[in-house]
Amino acid sequence: MSALWDTSRHLRQLGLRQATLLVDRARAEANIARFAARARAANVILRPHFKTHQSAAVADWFRRAGVRKATVSSIGMARYFADHGWSDLTLAIGANPLEADLYDALAGRIRLGLTVDAVATVDLLLPRLRRVEAFWIEVDTGQGRGGVPWADHAALVAVARRLGPGRLAGLLTHGGHSYGGPAARVFGEVRTRMQAARSALVAAGLPAVPISAGDTPGFAASEDWNGLDEARPGNFVFYDLMQLQAGACGEDDLACAVACPVIGVYPARGELLVHAGAVHLSCEHLDGTYGRLLQAGPPGFGRLLEGWAVRGLSQEHGRLAAESTGARAELQRLAPGDLVLIAPVHACLTCEQFARYWTLAGEELPRYGRTC
Amino acid sequence: MSALWDTSRHLRQLGLRQATLLVDRARAEANIARFAARARAANVILRPHFKTHQSAAVADWFRRAGVRKATVSSIGMARYFADHGWSDLTLAIGANPLEADLYDALAGRIRLGLTVDAVATVDLLLPRLRRVEAFWIEVDTGQGRGGVPWADHAALVAVARRLGPGRLAGLLTHGGHSYGGPAARVFGEVRTRMQAARSALVAAGLPAVPISAGDTPGFAASEDWNGLDEARPGNFVFYDLMQLQAGACGEDDLACAVACPVIGVYPARGELLVHAGAVHLSCEHLDGTYGRLLQAGPPGFGRLLEGWAVRGLSQEHGRLAAESTGARAELQRLAPGDLVLIAPVHACLTCEQFARYWTLAGEELPRYGRTC
Repeated sequence: MSALWDTSRHLRQLGLRQATLLVDRARAEANIARFAARARAANVILRPHFKTHQSAAVADWFRRAGVRKATVSSIGMARYFADHGWSDLTLAIGANPLEADLYDALAGRIRLGLTVDAVATVDLLLPRLRRVEAFWIEVDTGQGRGGVPWADHAALVAVARRLGPGRLAGLLTHGGHSYGGPAARVFGEVRTRMQAARSALVAAGLPAVPISAGDTPGFAASEDWNGLDEARPGNFVFYDLMQLQAGACGEDDLACAVACPVIGVYPARGELLVHAGAVHLSCEHLDGTYGRLLQAGPPGFGRLLEGWAVRGLSQEHGRLAAESTGARAELQRLAPGDLVLIAPVHACLTCEQFARYWTLAGEELPRYGRTC
Repeated sequence: MSALWDTSRHLRQLGLRQATLLVDRARAEANIARFAARARAANVILRPHFKTHQSAAVADWFRRAGVRKATVSSIGMARYFADHGWSDLTLAIGANPLEADLYDALAGRIRLGLTVDAVATVDLLLPRLRRVEAFWIEVDTGQGRGGVPWADHAALVAVARRLGPGRLAGLLTHGGHSYGGPAARVFGEVRTRMQAARSALVAAGLPAVPISAGDTPGFAASEDWNGLDEARPGNFVFYDLMQLQAGACGEDDLACAVACPVIGVYPARGELLVHAGAVHLSCEHLDGTYGRLLQAGPPGFGRLLEGWAVRGLSQEHGRLAAESTGARAELQRLAPGDLVLIAPVHACLTCEQFARYWTLAGEELPRYGRTC
């Protein structure tokens, strides 16, 4: 028996023939249920980031788990989910004054939260917004990307004051440096720093607003969500090899992967070539690994196949190396027209490359299609 | 005067407000004209790879330069260009037997060339194809991706014989290892190896078929295209920072770039944040540089701005560092809502992320939209 060959047969029976984004619905729903239960237990609002999946169908799975609020990263994505019944969305990326009219139009239909981190941005936005009521101040708790530095209390207070009474929805951070680990320690530090930022506002006579944080490794690594009011992780719906390496999930949690047709078999160098490259998988890698092979069978995705790694990508080609005796033996059984299933390094970027998902039951799931 | 600020003003006058793919049409047409003239002078057929731009409008610029044949990397892309009047296309990626019916359907409308590198593939394809008449044997001249190894004469002859009389269109290679340089030396070696491969066929009583090679650095680096019948480079229409580093172009040849809105200004750490990340620019980088800033003004793109580099990308964010005294001074003049123009590291992957281009004259150019 060859797990590789069985997977190929199964994927061919599904009628696949080109690079196709697959989701194991049972795994994804289990991932959602687990996080939703943890949020309830911690008395924290789960406002998952929908940039990972960008699908109204996957969003419905969240709704069935009791989720009613979500996070997005572009105004287009916000409009897409608003069109699919989501009425409370936070745009968790620094607001762009050039889009003010788009924000205001959407805020006439749903509760739209915007993110700001500077007085200058507030000054550019407020005169152009009549309907947006919720503003989050982004706080930099150590990632060094967006946000007011957590210890710059004067700047935090200045932005909050400039927003004026009633507009400050809360303080928001992305502890993205948890990806560099150790996630639990970073997560604890993020929570402490957010508390300090809120205390600075309170000391200045401002209200004790909610605190929102969002990164999958931090929430996955720590049972203690104390001090947070809202959780915005996104990747946990699918996970990926990066999360696996960070210890945020097990391999049985990997819920999305790309079925890829074999177009070349090279026993002499122990390699397969697939028609799936950077435009399908994205060029994100972990120390030179651009993906790994997953088993798939009638119940769903299986385990990772040992001895195989995607070692190179060009625009449309992927180079799969058989790096064990067993893998080199399996290689001999494959031919062009077989299919392999590649688990991505970074699910968000891989999913972004596709217009739709397919479940293993043959259900087609739509995705938001960027129109830029 | 600040080139950065002038560029922002110009881009804002164009009405841009979100990450937008721009093309400097005059530069692109000059790049096309130069390569077309070189191909004519060398008596080599130019069959440019259209995966770089994937636009019927850009393809029209090639047509006006006398180009009538093109290369594509997926059957979907082939259908798109066939629908736009291109009647001679080579699918320069190992043929996928699962797509045989799609190939055959298209071959009823245009001359479609397929690429094979193994007897097994030929055996899987031929019984399913009635209309495809042109098969190229892919030869591996050192890149180590697809193709029969150039020195494996027995395998070359076996594939050619298996195709049977009249079907062999030629030998095709992609000397992609020229990106590792030195391009001129690699290009010379590729040509020599392709001659040897063809000689092996002739020695076995097979015809002396045409030789097709394709990689921008090789063709750019060498005036001597001797021994080649067909040239398939693609990137030269736009070029990018990778080609600039490889010496294949000058900075005045860079013809596509992404206008990106500033969403954060951080003078203390000398950085700008733009709403343009890996989903816009792709995560390809050159030693940690994910893009550089270009000037733009009424006539078109200008020079690269010294002292600036895109130093980090997440899904939707780009982190731009001011790395000179001048750049740090310029930074002070920008605010959220300004726009910068980022020259991509790898144009093919960046363009892939967008549904359309805009010229600086406000002309909208369509792109092939993948539907996978």
